[in-house]
Amino acid sequence: MKKSSLTILGCHSSIPTKKFYPTAQILEMKGFIFLIDCGEGTQVQLRKAKIKFNKIIHIFISHLHGDHFFGLIGLLSTFHLLGREESVNIYAPKGLKDIINTHFKWSYTRIKYCIDYIELSSNKLEKIMENEKIEVYTIPLKHRIYTNGFLFKEKISNRKLNMEEIKKIPDINIIHYKDLKIGKNFKTNEGIIIPNCQLTFDPPKILSYAFCSDTSYYSPIIDHIKYIDLLYHESTFLKTEKIRAINTGHSTANQAAYIAKKAKVKKLILGHYSNRFPNIKDFEKEAKKIFYNVEASEPLKKYYLDQ
Amino acid sequence: MKKSSLTILGCHSSIPTKKFYPTAQILEMKGFIFLIDCGEGTQVQLRKAKIKFNKIIHIFISHLHGDHFFGLIGLLSTFHLLGREESVNIYAPKGLKDIINTHFKWSYTRIKYCIDYIELSSNKLEKIMENEKIEVYTIPLKHRIYTNGFLFKEKISNRKLNMEEIKKIPDINIIHYKDLKIGKNFKTNEGIIIPNCQLTFDPPKILSYAFCSDTSYYSPIIDHIKYIDLLYHESTFLKTEKIRAINTGHSTANQAAYIAKKAKVKKLILGHYSNRFPNIKDFEKEAKKIFYNVEASEPLKKYYLDQ
Repeated sequence: MKKSSLTILGCHSSIPTKKFYPTAQILEMKGFIFLIDCGEGTQVQLRKAKIKFNKIIHIFISHLHGDHFFGLIGLLSTFHLLGREESVNIYAPKGLKDIINTHFKWSYTRIKYCIDYIELSSNKLEKIMENEKIEVYTIPLKHRIYTNGFLFKEKISNRKLNMEEIKKIPDINIIHYKDLKIGKNFKTNEGIIIPNCQLTFDPPKILSYAFCSDTSYYSPIIDHIKYIDLLYHESTFLKTEKIRAINTGHSTANQAAYIAKKAKVKKLILGHYSNRFPNIKDFEKEAKKIFYNVEASEPLKKYYLDQ
Repeated sequence: MKKSSLTILGCHSSIPTKKFYPTAQILEMKGFIFLIDCGEGTQVQLRKAKIKFNKIIHIFISHLHGDHFFGLIGLLSTFHLLGREESVNIYAPKGLKDIINTHFKWSYTRIKYCIDYIELSSNKLEKIMENEKIEVYTIPLKHRIYTNGFLFKEKISNRKLNMEEIKKIPDINIIHYKDLKIGKNFKTNEGIIIPNCQLTFDPPKILSYAFCSDTSYYSPIIDHIKYIDLLYHESTFLKTEKIRAINTGHSTANQAAYIAKKAKVKKLILGHYSNRFPNIKDFEKEAKKIFYNVEASEPLKKYYLDQ
């Protein structure tokens, strides 16, 4: 299985230009593909990143400002034109269903696949998706309109069998493997207890990722993302524009770094840059003064969660 | 004043890709700028073509299939973010206003400029815009949903003064110029009539452009576009896919050429190519067998109406 990773499709704010793509990213985790936000042009960026459209089952929309979802109707239409039959789950604030359905109504489009809207309205951390390998939670953010970040956590998987040691115990049969994988000790026919740790290896480390955009500096985030492996936190402005950040419901690179430091995350990547700053490395420089392991994210760059 | 021209922003159908942009074009005529259709990515193509956003006052949307308008909400939002105050006129079928307003409603956006929707519903040629220099008409097309093409015609302008000849007649004063420009003869103090054609030159030739996409082969178009200077007619398919063209409400290159030939237009450009044909020159080749002055349009290419 591929290593869990995040691919940035767009990491600029508000207005798309020749070089700047609005927010969209792909998280690949335990074989699942999650699309997070979907600014205009996302379907073209997906092609550049060689992501197969039919692998996208779950789409998470943080809020209903255009730079976070204006590419969605185009992507959903393309699914239709490509003959998709598998359903799509869209986790988004109230209103998105109305917008999408208004489009389909006026173009007389009858899509052949099903869209399940999971309407988000809570202002607390809330589990919104779970399967056998992953859990996804909302992270309430503080912006001009109702906005969520998202926390993606791998579930702990089974222990790995240590076949070399297992073969030394003739009583162990294939039917015992299931119990060993979930951590049970083994009792031989003579009644000797062999501890599980002697017969298995620890499971792979579980990884986690949090997406926090758009938001003001908002300290309640910290508790929700403690010790995670990778954090994407918006840094629309540099601290020279701190007042503008407050007035528009955004953060500075400096503030993003404080959140990362206080949450003790492994790595921070920045994004949602305002077009007024031509050199995105300036965001990285500012944040590095507070938190060492930080990078200014770039379109089409892939970040592995275990690095 | 710049010569009247058409700039192609996108000329492919349905699905945007790395190379293929959906329908959008800019007509510059007598100093006015008209945006015709607005597929996803149009605002980025406008930047590449160096078109100033605040010059766009009139937007014409042929129909409500996504590849013709999914870029519009992004463009209108960008107008808002750039602080636009001047109003925009949008000529489109019923439904577009509902779609745009649904977006603004859920993002709590209060735009500072005014959008005037001119809702098109006629199935006949209809004058929908007129100013001192230009007239615009709908061209009813035949597609799967209600669709219009658009005919743009320059108005005849005033005659140009022949100053060399005028100076020879001492009785002619600056107050007489207005009458001379609209074609009146001049009567000297002695009562001699000097014919206007001796004192003025013919006005510049009036030019015309027609946009016809999306449409099946539809002969009523011909009468509406007789002798125009430039025709953009869709050619989604080659004639090998004639049945598919009929079933989907589109045309072949061959059919577009027949329309151009029968209407005796000066020049035909093709577009709205299906992605299934990698080489757009194949459309040109097919059409050329019927109509000589034809070109397969390309993104960011400019076509002058008087050539």
